[in-house]
Amino acid sequence: MRDLYHEELDSIGATLIEMTGLVASALNQATDALLNSDLQLAEKVIAGDEEVDALRRDLDAKALDLLARQQPVAGDLRTIVTSLRMSSDLERMGDLAKHIGKVARLRYPDSAVPAELHDSIREMGRLGVELATKAGEIIDGQDVEAARGLDEEDNAVDALHRQLFAELLHEGNEYPVETAIDVTLVGRYYERFADHAVSVARRLVFLVTGEN
Amino acid sequence: MRDLYHEELDSIGATLIEMTGLVASALNQATDALLNSDLQLAEKVIAGDEEVDALRRDLDAKALDLLARQQPVAGDLRTIVTSLRMSSDLERMGDLAKHIGKVARLRYPDSAVPAELHDSIREMGRLGVELATKAGEIIDGQDVEAARGLDEEDNAVDALHRQLFAELLHEGNEYPVETAIDVTLVGRYYERFADHAVSVARRLVFLVTGEN
Repeated sequence: MRDLYHEELDSIGATLIEMTGLVASALNQATDALLNSDLQLAEKVIAGDEEVDALRRDLDAKALDLLARQQPVAGDLRTIVTSLRMSSDLERMGDLAKHIGKVARLRYPDSAVPAELHDSIREMGRLGVELATKAGEIIDGQDVEAARGLDEEDNAVDALHRQLFAELLHEGNEYPVETAIDVTLVGRYYERFADHAVSVARRLVFLVTGEN
Repeated sequence: MRDLYHEELDSIGATLIEMTGLVASALNQATDALLNSDLQLAEKVIAGDEEVDALRRDLDAKALDLLARQQPVAGDLRTIVTSLRMSSDLERMGDLAKHIGKVARLRYPDSAVPAELHDSIREMGRLGVELATKAGEIIDGQDVEAARGLDEEDNAVDALHRQLFAELLHEGNEYPVETAIDVTLVGRYYERFADHAVSVARRLVFLVTGEN
């Protein structure tokens, strides 16, 4: 039977996994809201971010409390410090999904993204959701090998991000400035979301191996 | 005379203050590089970010080592955890200044920012430098009151950020898409830089008062 201290450590891990699920779902819904001009879904994503923020606050308070009361060493210390960093990444991923929801809301009933760019954005969204989901599985399974294998998805997001700029700039497309602003911002939000997901996975490698 | 442990804690504080100076200077130079199309200065900013990254790595290693070896409680524990968070903000501020340098380099010998938007960008840069500098002074003086007083500058940055979009969208300006992309990105970088500076200051309030 595990003692209270280790139960609390476990519950921090469970909260991190729960947060990966919430931000993956938020990004998925934000993408749908953006591409389908779905105001109700956009509002849901925007309001839902509070749940991620609350989990982060609880997790951080619990982690700081464990640090102060238990004076953990070695592996447990690394677990707690790493958890604080992961929760910071995950909170930011929630913010970025919310930002995408806000762009969708701002342009409703229009779509902020022109139809011919939907495929690129949809794919960036899909990859972001996949990265967040994998980050959760990686935390759950302490899976160092899987964490090291996320570069492919991350590179794919970066390539799509560059392609988005290329499409915006492509001669003859003549997009309005408003579209250029919106697509530049949402492209950046997806790219940062993916970066933070990869960062969560990399921190798991540090947690398990002690190597940066 | 202070013992080695407290000397190491002091040196973490000194490193944080040094980092605020470096990122303030980097943003100042990045703004000059951007507005004056100064390729050499842009390269200097881009290369200089490695120094910030190195300070961050050293600081984090030292902080984790102190946590593990000294098992600090209460105030010292809060100092170390807060320092890890501040170093993360400051490292990101360095990245953002570097990103601005990269936009300057990408468009050289042209300027990424049209002449009539220079004043807004210059002012965002000035406010960012001021916020970073004040964050350093606030850490140095443990100045909770000053930390609480940064909202004015931060609101001014947000207002300039909105104004930038308004100028881009203003009827009759007819900016090319490339300009819209560049200005949208650099505007975002300045805004995030300011956010992180305010975050550093807020963390000081937590450090001193224990209140979030």
